[in-house]
Amino acid sequence: MKTTVIGLGLIGGSFALSLKDKGLSDHVMGIERSEAGARRALELGLVDEIVDMDTALGQSDLIVLATPVDTIPTMAAKILNRIRRDQIVMDMGSIKQELCELTMMHPNRGRLVATHPMWGTENSGPDAAVHGGFAGRTVVICERERSDDDAASAVETIYRTLGMPIRYMSAEEQDTHCAYVSHISHITSFALALTVLEKEREEEHIFDLAGGGFESTVRLAKSLPQTWAPIFLGNKYNVLDVLREHIHQLQILRRMIERDDRDGLLESMHRANKIRDILE
Amino acid sequence: MKTTVIGLGLIGGSFALSLKDKGLSDHVMGIERSEAGARRALELGLVDEIVDMDTALGQSDLIVLATPVDTIPTMAAKILNRIRRDQIVMDMGSIKQELCELTMMHPNRGRLVATHPMWGTENSGPDAAVHGGFAGRTVVICERERSDDDAASAVETIYRTLGMPIRYMSAEEQDTHCAYVSHISHITSFALALTVLEKEREEEHIFDLAGGGFESTVRLAKSLPQTWAPIFLGNKYNVLDVLREHIHQLQILRRMIERDDRDGLLESMHRANKIRDILE
Repeated sequence: MKTTVIGLGLIGGSFALSLKDKGLSDHVMGIERSEAGARRALELGLVDEIVDMDTALGQSDLIVLATPVDTIPTMAAKILNRIRRDQIVMDMGSIKQELCELTMMHPNRGRLVATHPMWGTENSGPDAAVHGGFAGRTVVICERERSDDDAASAVETIYRTLGMPIRYMSAEEQDTHCAYVSHISHITSFALALTVLEKEREEEHIFDLAGGGFESTVRLAKSLPQTWAPIFLGNKYNVLDVLREHIHQLQILRRMIERDDRDGLLESMHRANKIRDILE
Repeated sequence: MKTTVIGLGLIGGSFALSLKDKGLSDHVMGIERSEAGARRALELGLVDEIVDMDTALGQSDLIVLATPVDTIPTMAAKILNRIRRDQIVMDMGSIKQELCELTMMHPNRGRLVATHPMWGTENSGPDAAVHGGFAGRTVVICERERSDDDAASAVETIYRTLGMPIRYMSAEEQDTHCAYVSHISHITSFALALTVLEKEREEEHIFDLAGGGFESTVRLAKSLPQTWAPIFLGNKYNVLDVLREHIHQLQILRRMIERDDRDGLLESMHRANKIRDILE
């Protein structure tokens, strides 16, 4: 199988590596807007060659969209305009409603498989690409019934080979759930970093004192703004909803501390502890 | 050296193991309020025997306080009342102002070394104790000038042997800095868990979709309420101050998302990214 990955950062780069490592693709081409990024992706061996869109459309069995989420819907629609019936397009974006709505009535909609692999790190760019990413993490496939069966099956085979359990959802469900379990974590981590940078003027104290707890909570604040701004804005209503609840929960805890309400604090934290049973 | 560790949970238990692993103490005794905990600590080999306070005071060269922070100040004062001039008391609590104030004028204040090793995990109780904890993490020693030099030196030797860089601060400084880099991380993590548990009624979705990002941000919400409630309340004014700023930062991000202020979001996240340079 010949593949083109569009966007050779953390996600696209790691996916390209996985395709080759698992023998899923014998020739992986890449498209990357940044010239330096394209050069680096070649140097790192993420892809076999850098191509243009015409070559990608002419020669690929599979075209993978791994660019920031705000660029995916129109790019997908334009690629569907030009694709052959034996080719497959898949995306790896974190939100899905705009993509699914924009392509819903496209006569070639069946060639598109809308996916969201729930994996990532706080690093970005071609240098962030790693072997063995994705393994063990869930992938969401949205509106599988709108994809042709052969296209969906091919993509499912790829994800299964990478060791990923598959869940099926509507685009609306996926965007709501991901606001809860992924997007809000990033916002709270960015806000925590800003809080500490604002309050703690003596940087060496942050460095000296930051224990493992702080590091893990603030890790996501290292993530690429260009990746995450479009996700927050593209999933605006879900994100605002969860963010409102999160601020509300912080205010409740704050009021308990203000009032020395030890019992209330203990009860709230015991409830929060339940996350352990769910995650383990 | 004979040691008694009071409080055989995550911190006390791991410290007891480290003392023996590093050959720093040939006999480690333990005091543990919970009978089940005491039994478990013996089974796990965290300590050589469980003793009472009289035995501890009679036989120990070093007495280590590793109980919840609200119990430490009065316990330290009472132990100082009965201690010999060749014995040392140290505490491992996360906050220091109350302890340092309560013991300030005690004629035996010199025998007390007030320390805060910046290490922990989200687990608790004797079973949470691990070999090799503490290594590489900073330890804060507060008001060293109020400790006798031989007592402070002995404790410094222990921490250095565990591979911990030492920082010296006033109790006020330590409590302020720890509110920034440790206590707020725990509150935000508890609030995040409560948010997700509140909003996401379908627990299997949390389990399926929680990527590494969510897990690391919410990890601290597994921590023991009985440990953390006294820390938040004991460091109330610093914690409220940082919490106010954190909620403010979340509200700023929320407003930017509401207004589709992409440039503002990008700028804020770029500023937050600075945490990478500080931590690495």
